[in-house]
Amino acid sequence: MTSAALIEDKHVAFAVELADIARAVLRENRLARVDVSVKADRSLVTAMDILIEDRLRGMISARYPSHGIIGEERDWVRPGSEHVWVLDPIDGTTAFIAGMPVYGTLIALAVGGVPRLGIIDIPAIDSRWIGAEGRRTTRNGQEVSVRSCPSLAEAIMTNSNQDYLAQNERPALDRLRAATSARVYGGASLNYGLLADGRTDLALDGGQKVFDFAPFRPIVEGAGGIVTDWAGAPLTLESSGQLLGAGDARVHAQALDLVKDMKSGSAVSANA
Amino acid sequence: MTSAALIEDKHVAFAVELADIARAVLRENRLARVDVSVKADRSLVTAMDILIEDRLRGMISARYPSHGIIGEERDWVRPGSEHVWVLDPIDGTTAFIAGMPVYGTLIALAVGGVPRLGIIDIPAIDSRWIGAEGRRTTRNGQEVSVRSCPSLAEAIMTNSNQDYLAQNERPALDRLRAATSARVYGGASLNYGLLADGRTDLALDGGQKVFDFAPFRPIVEGAGGIVTDWAGAPLTLESSGQLLGAGDARVHAQALDLVKDMKSGSAVSANA
Repeated sequence: MTSAALIEDKHVAFAVELADIARAVLRENRLARVDVSVKADRSLVTAMDILIEDRLRGMISARYPSHGIIGEERDWVRPGSEHVWVLDPIDGTTAFIAGMPVYGTLIALAVGGVPRLGIIDIPAIDSRWIGAEGRRTTRNGQEVSVRSCPSLAEAIMTNSNQDYLAQNERPALDRLRAATSARVYGGASLNYGLLADGRTDLALDGGQKVFDFAPFRPIVEGAGGIVTDWAGAPLTLESSGQLLGAGDARVHAQALDLVKDMKSGSAVSANA
Repeated sequence: MTSAALIEDKHVAFAVELADIARAVLRENRLARVDVSVKADRSLVTAMDILIEDRLRGMISARYPSHGIIGEERDWVRPGSEHVWVLDPIDGTTAFIAGMPVYGTLIALAVGGVPRLGIIDIPAIDSRWIGAEGRRTTRNGQEVSVRSCPSLAEAIMTNSNQDYLAQNERPALDRLRAATSARVYGGASLNYGLLADGRTDLALDGGQKVFDFAPFRPIVEGAGGIVTDWAGAPLTLESSGQLLGAGDARVHAQALDLVKDMKSGSAVSANA
C-alpha cells in the first residue's frame, strides 16, 4: 500500500463534514455572546468547545467506531488505534474571546501515529485549508503552494503567542527575530495556512499540544513545505509541541541551526 | 464653541468618503497580487500606499484647501494648520503582505493639535470603527462601549508587534505580560477597535508614528475608554508613540504605574 492510499477520499469528505458542523455551531453561538465578563467568557468558550467536540465525537463514533479520538476537552478514546482523529474545536481561545479573526477549528486524521489528513478552518475570514497525503493542499478548493525564499535573512516569520514558550525556549524566538526580515505575531493556526499559501516563509511555535498542531504536517507538506519539531523530526502525534515550519527547505535548515539546541520546556507560563 | 462642535457632521461624512475610497483601491489591487517575492511585495505595498495616499490627498485638497495633511508616504502639507488630516493608507504593512486579516486604513482629523475624529477600517473583516468628539463610537454603524474590568490581573491585553519596542521599552511589555490575565498578539490598529468594543481591556504599543495612532483617541474615548502615552498624557499629534489604552480607568491606572518610568526609545529594531 502506498502512503497516499492510507488516506481515502471518503476520509477527506468526512473531515469536511466535521468542519462544516463545527463552523455552524460556532456561528450560531457566537451571536449569543454579548458583553460577558472575561471570566464568564472563558467558561462560555469552554462550554462551546465541549459542545462542538461532543458533536464531532458523536459523528466519528457513529461512522468509524474503531477509530480513536483525541480532543482537548474530553478523555481520549482508543488513542493507540491505527486511525486516530484529533480535534481542537476552537483553536486560539483568547483570540476568539478578544474578537481577533484568527481563531479556528482544527481537525486531523492520523494513521499509524502520523497525521496524514488535516483541516484548518478559520470562519472569521471564511477560509479552509485541507491537506492530505498524496494530494495538493487547497484553500477554499484552490490549490496552494509555498513560495521559495533563498535565505532566513529574507524570510517573514510568524509566531503565534510568545507566552506559550517556556523560559528556556525563549532564545529560539529571539534568535529568529534577529535573523529574519520581518515578523507577524498572533495568527494561531492561520500561520500554517499562510505558510502553505506562500504568504509567509517561516513559522515558529512552542508549547503546543497535539490538538494544536496535528493538521499542520499534511497541510504544509501538501503545499510543498516542511514542518518539523525543533530537532528537525517530522511531526507525529508524539511530537514535543515545538514547531518549525518553512516553505523553503533552505530557510528551514538555517532556522533549525538556530533552535536545535533548545530542549523542550517543562513550564509554560501562558493561559491556555 | 463647545469641543463637540469642533467636529461637524460634514467632517465625519467626508472621512467616511475617504475610507470608502481607500477600501475600494485596496480591494481592486489586492486581486492583482499573486506570488510576488518578499522584496517585490514590499515595493508593491509601498506603491499601493502611495496610490491610496495620493488619492486621499487629492480629495482633501479639493474639499478643504486650507487644511493640513500628514501622511506616511509624502511630505507633510501645512502640518501646523488648525485642521490637519492624518492618513495611513495601509496600517499593518507586514500583516497585509502576510495575509493576516488585521491590516487597515487609518484616517483622522486633528483640530488644534488634538485628534478629534478617527476611523479604523479593517477590510478583511468588513469592520469600520468611527469615533468623533461628542459622539458615541460606532462599529459598522452600531454604537460600541468598552467593558468594565476591575483590575489588571483580570485584563486581556493586546500588543501588536514587540519588534516596534526599543530595547529600553521592552520591560513595559514584560511587566504587563506578567501582570495581566491573557495576551493577544498581532492585531495592529484592530486592537483599538476591539478595546472600544469591550472585547479586550488593555492595549500596549510602542514605537508608533502619528499616522499609526491618530484615530485611536476619538475612537476609544467615544466608547468610554482612555488612551494616553506611557506618562499618562492624552494623545496629541505630538505624542511620543508610546500608547496605553484601557477600557476601565482602574486598569489604566494600574498599568500606568508599571510603565510610566519608561523613557521613549530612540532605536527601534523593527522593519516598518
